[in-house]
Amino acid sequence: MIKIPILQITLFERPLEKKRKLVEMVTEAVVNALDCPKDAVRIIINDMSKENYAIAGTLYIDR
Amino acid sequence: MIKIPILQITLFERPLEKKRKLVEMVTEAVVNALDCPKDAVRIIINDMSKENYAIAGTLYIDR
Amino acid sequence: MIKIPILQITLFERPLEKKRKLVEMVTEAVVNALDCPKDAVRIIINDMSKENYAIAGTLYIDR
Amino acid sequence: MIKIPILQITLFERPLEKKRKLVEMVTEAVVNALDCPKDAVRIIINDMSKENYAIAGTLYIDR
Amino acid sequence: MIKIPILQITLFERPLEKKRKLVEMVTEAVVNALDCPKDAVRIIINDMSKENYAIAGTLYIDR
Amino acid sequence: MIKIPILQITLFERPLEKKRKLVEMVTEAVVNALDCPKDAVRIIINDMSKENYAIAGTLYIDR
Repeated sequence: MIKIPILQITLFERPLEKKRKLVEMVTEAVVNALDCPKDAVRIIINDMSKENYAIAGTLYIDR
Repeated sequence: MIKIPILQITLFERPLEKKRKLVEMVTEAVVNALDCPKDAVRIIINDMSKENYAIAGTLYIDR
Repeated sequence: MIKIPILQITLFERPLEKKRKLVEMVTEAVVNALDCPKDAVRIIINDMSKENYAIAGTLYIDR
Repeated sequence: MIKIPILQITLFERPLEKKRKLVEMVTEAVVNALDCPKDAVRIIINDMSKENYAIAGTLYIDR
Repeated sequence: MIKIPILQITLFERPLEKKRKLVEMVTEAVVNALDCPKDAVRIIINDMSKENYAIAGTLYIDR
Repeated sequence: MIKIPILQITLFERPLEKKRKLVEMVTEAVVNALDCPKDAVRIIINDMSKENYAIAGTLYIDR
């Protein structure tokens, strides 16, 4: 069986409850879009601090 | 506005129509789970060939 | 010596001449900002096709 | 407008002031090299601890 | 000389001693498989918390 | 069971036979170092062209 797709989601830190909902809903969307088994979907969450993201040359923490 | 989250989705090559559906449905799921504006969601798709993925030490192409 | 930082740059495909200029100028910026030796900077370029990037749920190719 | 390029910079932890300078200077370099709008450039910084990087089979912390 | 390959290993947090062994053994395997100089191999370890990984729509922490 | 670790290996394009050997040997090394089941190890190979990698501000193709 295909142990794939693998998703990596980079976002600012969120409470556990939000992450729980996120992986549940995104997994369901992937399953429906690709017709793949639910068990095949893996998600890695990257918590990012606000001093580690920049737009237009400015850290998010400074905007 | 938060130009985030950023998703990276690694999957075996799929036809354009599938990708179209995938980004549409996944974006909607992210928006609903995180309560973020739709415009904030960016998705990068990584097409992977079957000779570039291995499980348990065996390339997918050889399984 | 520190064989780091490592940069990964994801962008739509560009001609070789642009990439040449990009890695030269970005490396110089990193060296000046971090006070690190030029030889320590590594850059990986990820060419992305326009059907592999989505904003707000729409592939770039469809915008 | 093109919400791209996206840069990911992996480096050992640095003080906030260094990161501020880094994203400012790298963004400017990207804008000049690629002729893209400043607002299009996004940078994600990955802080790496010295026990999470190895060269030649040896963790940086042990060198 | 080729300052490559670069490996990124995502795993649940492990004690330092395990990481030490991991980078040593993986580097040796890469050197033997690719016939490349040991000094060329770089490894980045991504520690992942159990609330940041999901299979089948469920966070690892909830399984 | 832990569907992890996930390895991403970035290297210049190699023939299939080399990749086969690489994933076999690296997987074995990971299993021995971490005491994890062989089936838990996933490897993604990123083929990189020589115009997409730079050291010290120079593309590999130009060195």
